[in-house]
Amino acid sequence: MKLNCDLGESFGSWSMGEDEAIIPLIDMANIACGFHASDPLVMQKTVEFAKKHSVMIGAHPGYPDLVGFGRRSMKCSSEEIEAFVVYQVGALSGVCKASGAKVEYVKPHGALYNDMMKDENIMRAILGAISKIDKNLKLMILSTTKNSYYEKLAYEFRVELIYEVFADRAYTNDGFLVPRTQSGAVIHDLDTVLKRIDLLKSEGMLVTIDGSKIELKADSMCVHGDNAEAVKFVKALRDYIVAGD
Amino acid sequence: MKLNCDLGESFGSWSMGEDEAIIPLIDMANIACGFHASDPLVMQKTVEFAKKHSVMIGAHPGYPDLVGFGRRSMKCSSEEIEAFVVYQVGALSGVCKASGAKVEYVKPHGALYNDMMKDENIMRAILGAISKIDKNLKLMILSTTKNSYYEKLAYEFRVELIYEVFADRAYTNDGFLVPRTQSGAVIHDLDTVLKRIDLLKSEGMLVTIDGSKIELKADSMCVHGDNAEAVKFVKALRDYIVAGD
Amino acid sequence: MKLNCDLGESFGSWSMGEDEAIIPLIDMANIACGFHASDPLVMQKTVEFAKKHSVMIGAHPGYPDLVGFGRRSMKCSSEEIEAFVVYQVGALSGVCKASGAKVEYVKPHGALYNDMMKDENIMRAILGAISKIDKNLKLMILSTTKNSYYEKLAYEFRVELIYEVFADRAYTNDGFLVPRTQSGAVIHDLDTVLKRIDLLKSEGMLVTIDGSKIELKADSMCVHGDNAEAVKFVKALRDYIVAGD
Amino acid sequence: MKLNCDLGESFGSWSMGEDEAIIPLIDMANIACGFHASDPLVMQKTVEFAKKHSVMIGAHPGYPDLVGFGRRSMKCSSEEIEAFVVYQVGALSGVCKASGAKVEYVKPHGALYNDMMKDENIMRAILGAISKIDKNLKLMILSTTKNSYYEKLAYEFRVELIYEVFADRAYTNDGFLVPRTQSGAVIHDLDTVLKRIDLLKSEGMLVTIDGSKIELKADSMCVHGDNAEAVKFVKALRDYIVAGD
Repeated sequence: MKLNCDLGESFGSWSMGEDEAIIPLIDMANIACGFHASDPLVMQKTVEFAKKHSVMIGAHPGYPDLVGFGRRSMKCSSEEIEAFVVYQVGALSGVCKASGAKVEYVKPHGALYNDMMKDENIMRAILGAISKIDKNLKLMILSTTKNSYYEKLAYEFRVELIYEVFADRAYTNDGFLVPRTQSGAVIHDLDTVLKRIDLLKSEGMLVTIDGSKIELKADSMCVHGDNAEAVKFVKALRDYIVAGD
Repeated sequence: MKLNCDLGESFGSWSMGEDEAIIPLIDMANIACGFHASDPLVMQKTVEFAKKHSVMIGAHPGYPDLVGFGRRSMKCSSEEIEAFVVYQVGALSGVCKASGAKVEYVKPHGALYNDMMKDENIMRAILGAISKIDKNLKLMILSTTKNSYYEKLAYEFRVELIYEVFADRAYTNDGFLVPRTQSGAVIHDLDTVLKRIDLLKSEGMLVTIDGSKIELKADSMCVHGDNAEAVKFVKALRDYIVAGD
Repeated sequence: MKLNCDLGESFGSWSMGEDEAIIPLIDMANIACGFHASDPLVMQKTVEFAKKHSVMIGAHPGYPDLVGFGRRSMKCSSEEIEAFVVYQVGALSGVCKASGAKVEYVKPHGALYNDMMKDENIMRAILGAISKIDKNLKLMILSTTKNSYYEKLAYEFRVELIYEVFADRAYTNDGFLVPRTQSGAVIHDLDTVLKRIDLLKSEGMLVTIDGSKIELKADSMCVHGDNAEAVKFVKALRDYIVAGD
Repeated sequence: MKLNCDLGESFGSWSMGEDEAIIPLIDMANIACGFHASDPLVMQKTVEFAKKHSVMIGAHPGYPDLVGFGRRSMKCSSEEIEAFVVYQVGALSGVCKASGAKVEYVKPHGALYNDMMKDENIMRAILGAISKIDKNLKLMILSTTKNSYYEKLAYEFRVELIYEVFADRAYTNDGFLVPRTQSGAVIHDLDTVLKRIDLLKSEGMLVTIDGSKIELKADSMCVHGDNAEAVKFVKALRDYIVAGD
């Protein structure tokens, strides 16, 4: 199971995230493209650092909302979404090309990711963008109990999906994340998280918030690099995964 | 001699330029990339329209200054300029790829174009950006009496230059444009402009503001599509050039 | 009945609206504050022109979305909305103060206006902003059959309301606008519009899309100044109102 | 001698500066207004915190350049500068009014501050903005050996000046700051800084980089709150000043 992390989220003089500490620990870097975070110089540095550590690069496009960090849903048309995903993936591809690297997948950010999982038109707009710009790019989406539905949708566009899980988040019985506003939404205990990873790897199952077990495909696991504590957590995950392999 | 024009300068709900009228009349479209003008949807429409009329597409990157339309010089570092040129060219390349088109050259916009002609470090930053992203991209610069100097510079980066002239602008004796603030800077009379084009084509010479003749390489001529009057002017130029060929 | 119009919607080099033609015809100018349109220079010019023609000045705050012109709903928190309304009203107040003018009311723009009419929390956030910055500022809202509900809400904040009608728009029976996407939503015939104004003035009633009559308070009527045709329409309205007074 | 510090420089999800630690130690808070840093919510929180600690509030307007943090000089016209200073001061005034506070002075930020000290037209544009918006607002400028020249200029606009010194920066003989790029530009040793403060207070003199003594008016001293180390430095300065009073 791959570890992925949102990266390159600094902006101008504002720094965010422990990128240099987290990149050596992960497999896939979701790199912000300038609409909700990042700027051309930050993108360049992040791409170069990811390349140096042989970390796979994904575009992490978001809503055009810097001050809201792409976390506020915006009522955009399908045409607008398709166009701004193309733009952001193109921009990161240019930065990658200039550094001898390349974009291999797309993971929408924040509210765009959530909206994509709720609204088929948005998922279609994003798939359309990807299929037009480069059919070899994969799309990372939330793994739920409805994967087969998304599988068919993606196949219409001939785009391959990467299923993402959040081992440190509680799930509902249909495989969606329990909102952060609800108590118990985030699992802070490392051992519990490691047990969840074991179950995902051995049986492809996950325990939901009410104790039920659901089947959940898990190609990649999202981790966070916001601060030193988070980095330690990821280090422990990485060590555990390496030991288990 | 090719005609080039700055295009795709609308932004969101704000419209600018007679793009649909001017594109069929020109050879090369300098398309804004979102930093001083344009947005992902405008870029998409402009690229598709240029492609439909078989007009060559150039990236037209500018300073990150929407409200100032990229016309205000900004003291950016070489690293910043290289990075934002890469970003903008990458973004337009993505839009082109999604439409089955491609970027073939780069022409900096407004203050960035002027600063590039005054400051070797800025020219180097732009050449660096181009050579890193795609050595087949050419750079369009102002043709002056100092072309050989720039030729050497561009050769260091293995980037080919396109020399641009302004047939409707007065020139100083060293081949730079007379500033618009000076009287006589813009030539409004069509016949005078056509005579200047003749001289450029037949002898490769241009008459400067004091009546001197200077040698001036002319690969492409800049025209404007701001309004109906400007479009009529370009139509006349196009007819004249076609008739002469 | 007062005529109000959205104004000062140009941005940088992009021009929008026939402000100079429309301002002498109206009573109240809703002036954009830089978040969805306008910039400091445009605001200054618009304020000075409104002042010259003794037109009352209102702040026209919008979502922070230039490229979407504030027409896309954004999921902002109440705190965010209150803060950005304060900021925008403050900025326009500063511009007014520098020109010896003053802001007398607030009319939210586009999606923010629509969201305010749908969501009490947003209405409260806007009322909160106004009551904190200056209790003498009035809030312009859509006149519907539910005015008494909003009246109570506004009274909590000690803010006075201005009820706005759209004489050229079809209404549902509960006094909301028929969406533009529906046929018959916009009334283009001048005579029909004038008859609607007569009915509003004489009986305080409006005919809805299905022919019913509803009571509708009408303090101010929204007009548009997008182009020469729109200006002619407003001129006819103004002449008719003047003749009737 | 008052201590002043640039504050409220966070932006959206990006945090900057130890505002909560530094505000209780200073007398004057230069609060960013949203063009180079800050946003409406950050401004509100900063104003409320400054008010709680009875710290005088100043507007800290900058060039419209978020990604460059207002540190890049931009070639703006006098009209543009006057208009954007009015806008920013107005916005902060609105935020202050909503919190029962008020703006008492203006200190331009970064490149705008430096450009103001180099170019009389920019100083005039800023003085013009202040005199139009509120003649009671003072302007904070760099104290140099040319104060009398600026004094006359400000008097034309009936604006009072506040002279600022940097006790931890080396000075040239004409009272300008030695650029940070030059070695010795920043004085890190606390005792040296305290001695400089003593000399400023007792004799109104400052020792320049070549050991000369110049007369320098010192109404306010700029301190920094970027990190815990900087806060400790300011704490020491504050204690020293309090002890000496």
